[in-house]
Amino acid sequence: MSVERTLHHFPLDPASRQVRLALGEKRLAFGELVVRYWERPKSLTALNPSGMTPVLVETGGPETLVLCESRAILDHLEEAYPEPALIGVEAAERAEVRRLLQWFDRKFEFEVGGFILHEKMEKRLLGLGAPELANLRQGREGLKNHLHYMDSLLQSREWLAGRRLSLADFAAAAHLSVIDYFGDVPWKDFASVKTWYMKLKSRPAFRPILLDRWPGLTPAGHYDDLDF
Amino acid sequence: MSVERTLHHFPLDPASRQVRLALGEKRLAFGELVVRYWERPKSLTALNPSGMTPVLVETGGPETLVLCESRAILDHLEEAYPEPALIGVEAAERAEVRRLLQWFDRKFEFEVGGFILHEKMEKRLLGLGAPELANLRQGREGLKNHLHYMDSLLQSREWLAGRRLSLADFAAAAHLSVIDYFGDVPWKDFASVKTWYMKLKSRPAFRPILLDRWPGLTPAGHYDDLDF
Repeated sequence: MSVERTLHHFPLDPASRQVRLALGEKRLAFGELVVRYWERPKSLTALNPSGMTPVLVETGGPETLVLCESRAILDHLEEAYPEPALIGVEAAERAEVRRLLQWFDRKFEFEVGGFILHEKMEKRLLGLGAPELANLRQGREGLKNHLHYMDSLLQSREWLAGRRLSLADFAAAAHLSVIDYFGDVPWKDFASVKTWYMKLKSRPAFRPILLDRWPGLTPAGHYDDLDF
Repeated sequence: MSVERTLHHFPLDPASRQVRLALGEKRLAFGELVVRYWERPKSLTALNPSGMTPVLVETGGPETLVLCESRAILDHLEEAYPEPALIGVEAAERAEVRRLLQWFDRKFEFEVGGFILHEKMEKRLLGLGAPELANLRQGREGLKNHLHYMDSLLQSREWLAGRRLSLADFAAAAHLSVIDYFGDVPWKDFASVKTWYMKLKSRPAFRPILLDRWPGLTPAGHYDDLDF
């Protein structure tokens, strides 16, 4: 029996994007159910009590598996489909990938995404009015600090966690790509990050991400441009 | 050659406590370096650029391993010292442990710990003045919701993720125990959670947690009482 997968996700959710990238890189086919998570639909909360995307449902195996939250999904995919390895092989490499996962999912989200995406995306989705400029400014300042840090890593590494493409790259790219949708990434000041992002953008797993559109939210002109 | 471990941690940091509980449960000896993380000491930032605790350093193996951030440490311990299994065995069990890890480290921290610990602990450590009552109230309201949710799980499960003690229990207990240090957990209204916490409190791995004290921060009278 072959496993069938359905991903419950929101296209502009960085956590969902990480899972889509990992599934794509591992060439695992999946069906999609786009979820308006802010409306807390029962179809989602029945699967995940936190009401958050992403949720991956695997059927057709020995049991139906409901995987809630990005890290649980990513860890499962790594255990069930270890090739290609996206979390590193040796202990030190795995530790570095996981350090950076935490960096982007906590620190970046807290210092950057939480400001920019709340102001530019969530307020639109929820009908909460115009963005507050002070918050946008704070998010953009935080973004510069993070781009500086990424640039410093990428000056001596091919990928963020070292010589191998990993979930750390997907986490960073997932968070950055949503901010890039809204045109807020100052690529030209961060050459190494830009080169790294060009490499990621041209991978087949990234293509669906570049095709994402949401009604009422228009992407920046260069968003899907491989040569931006 | 035997592995030597040093844990850089802050006693009242929930993330650090999770790691101490896992190390204790796996009977792995470790030295301790208590870190005043809010002063951003170089000894810490040189190991972990995020400046956050915990950091675990393992020496004496084939290479020195620097493990930054709680989840990276917990995942490494599980891979390097699989017995006893703290993250579950079958895929569904592991998914449930990981769902709950996310629940406590993100949702609980965001809705409860971020309010109560900021007001009662961080403000004291940083000399930022008296707690704001509105924030405390919001944290306490959030706490009740989380205790209700835990209670509903524990009415049909021996441990939070199912029939086995897991990192989900340690995550929940780590977050709750710091709030309990400040006397803010309404145990009497949540009988199943209280029974569960009594079982955890009496495990040897929990003993060091109950001995934690910090100058200027006095624990609630029942904090280290096994029969509270």
